[in-house]
Amino acid sequence: VLSAYLLEHASVIFSAMAGVLAARGKNVDLFGVIVLGLVNAVGGGTLRDVMLDAPVFWVRDANFVLSSTFAAVTMFFLARVAHPDPKWLLLPDALGLALVTMLGTAKAAQLGHATSVCVVMGVTTGVAGGVLRDVLCGEIPLVFRKNIYLYATAAALGAGAYLAAKGLGAGEAIALTIGAGVVLILRWLAVRRRIGLPEFRLSSDGHVPTNE
Amino acid sequence: VLSAYLLEHASVIFSAMAGVLAARGKNVDLFGVIVLGLVNAVGGGTLRDVMLDAPVFWVRDANFVLSSTFAAVTMFFLARVAHPDPKWLLLPDALGLALVTMLGTAKAAQLGHATSVCVVMGVTTGVAGGVLRDVLCGEIPLVFRKNIYLYATAAALGAGAYLAAKGLGAGEAIALTIGAGVVLILRWLAVRRRIGLPEFRLSSDGHVPTNE
Amino acid sequence: VLSAYLLEHASVIFSAMAGVLAARGKNVDLFGVIVLGLVNAVGGGTLRDVMLDAPVFWVRDANFVLSSTFAAVTMFFLARVAHPDPKWLLLPDALGLALVTMLGTAKAAQLGHATSVCVVMGVTTGVAGGVLRDVLCGEIPLVFRKNIYLYATAAALGAGAYLAAKGLGAGEAIALTIGAGVVLILRWLAVRRRIGLPEFRLSSDGHVPTNE
Repeated sequence: VLSAYLLEHASVIFSAMAGVLAARGKNVDLFGVIVLGLVNAVGGGTLRDVMLDAPVFWVRDANFVLSSTFAAVTMFFLARVAHPDPKWLLLPDALGLALVTMLGTAKAAQLGHATSVCVVMGVTTGVAGGVLRDVLCGEIPLVFRKNIYLYATAAALGAGAYLAAKGLGAGEAIALTIGAGVVLILRWLAVRRRIGLPEFRLSSDGHVPTNE
Repeated sequence: VLSAYLLEHASVIFSAMAGVLAARGKNVDLFGVIVLGLVNAVGGGTLRDVMLDAPVFWVRDANFVLSSTFAAVTMFFLARVAHPDPKWLLLPDALGLALVTMLGTAKAAQLGHATSVCVVMGVTTGVAGGVLRDVLCGEIPLVFRKNIYLYATAAALGAGAYLAAKGLGAGEAIALTIGAGVVLILRWLAVRRRIGLPEFRLSSDGHVPTNE
Repeated sequence: VLSAYLLEHASVIFSAMAGVLAARGKNVDLFGVIVLGLVNAVGGGTLRDVMLDAPVFWVRDANFVLSSTFAAVTMFFLARVAHPDPKWLLLPDALGLALVTMLGTAKAAQLGHATSVCVVMGVTTGVAGGVLRDVLCGEIPLVFRKNIYLYATAAALGAGAYLAAKGLGAGEAIALTIGAGVVLILRWLAVRRRIGLPEFRLSSDGHVPTNE
């Protein structure tokens, strides 16, 4: 339980730092950067808790606010000196997605909700923070785009794998490991082989040439 | 009660399909399309339930998640083959707006809230899903624009008519019919005669010629 | 207590009117203007109450809905005749920010939350309505920009001053006055001397010329 808490903290801190990088080229000041970091870090879990009518996790445990604010401010100054190669972010980001999705799915499952609701809550915890961050930056959410390579889909299938393992009688730790493994493997395969979901096209798109 | 449940389901399914069409020309993948469909279908009711501190309807009854996801995926593939004429959408859309607004208003009224709060909740249920969908697509909400022809206004007046009928002693079924009728008639008149609300202008707009 | 209620009302009414002005040049109709006014006026408090799992203040007391709708409609028509100089708005806006931030912080403190959570709730109450308004208008929130001159920072430091005064044994009225005073003085100094937070820059911004 303690290690789960530390992992959750590590994941929130990492997300806060990643959220800061999204502010690049947006003329955003230090306050904006802190908000974008906090939203990226705790936005998904906040939405999940509000929809589940559970106490919001960072309202209950203020350490999350303190550590993600600290992480965002650190990143704000760090980014002026060193500019991380985006490739280095891929692994911790995938680990964070896997962990946060599992925690969100498990929380909904513990409250006794239906499978589909648990999957929605897991995916929401994993990706909604980034969606809110992108909306605040005035952009169409990155997670909706084909070149994100199975980000939310990996989260949804991992949540499903966790719930299936639980349904087949697996213990909590084993089910969580299976679910997180599914997220990581899918994400790794998708990035490596550039696998994406099909994009939305209307039938008319092929017939009428436009200059849109 | 059963038929109300079926009507609500039909309305959620239709909204999910309509939400998919909003993704046109946005480079959104299948996941994005499912999210836009779900947000359009259940976003308004979710916001209403969260603000009323009531259990979120689709968290309680997972059938809504299943049917709207299924509808969005179906529409995703259907739109590649057949491109519906937007005119065909007007009637089911108006029926959906009338129904969903009535359900939202009635839910707030049953919880004993004041008239103005019930109207806000009815309109929120009717239009907030579309507002969230437009924000996720990076657009100024369609419902704020003059050429939408009394969309939200029809919802607000229908909610008011329902509450007035109840206040005058009408039964639930009659009041709901009156309220839904007001929404449908106003919407029909507004689209037919191109009636819109006045647009916002500042006094200076008339004096200074601009090239905005 | 009565005067606090009247001040809160005055502040909500003023925010509703200020929200209307943000619709300038957006092709928004009367309904859109009412929504932008309401969101600006009650959005921050709504988000605070939902995250604290407290009853939403305007759902409980419908007078807030009535007065802010009335204020938005009045402003809609007033702005066609008279165009207020933005400078006149600065003082009532700063007073509103100070008041609303104090009320939000005090509400979280009365519920027994940690200091950092109370500060987040105070700042959320003070600025989240404007953030939501800007997102609905399709803009990057004004409060994230350098040239807003310590808007949210003034709110955060005022919230901190209120909590510090309470911690040192000051009475409620004195602590509120100190906190509000800190917000007003910081805001006044920042606007007068054009003090802003540093903007976000990546290390590469100085090295690599780009055409972004």
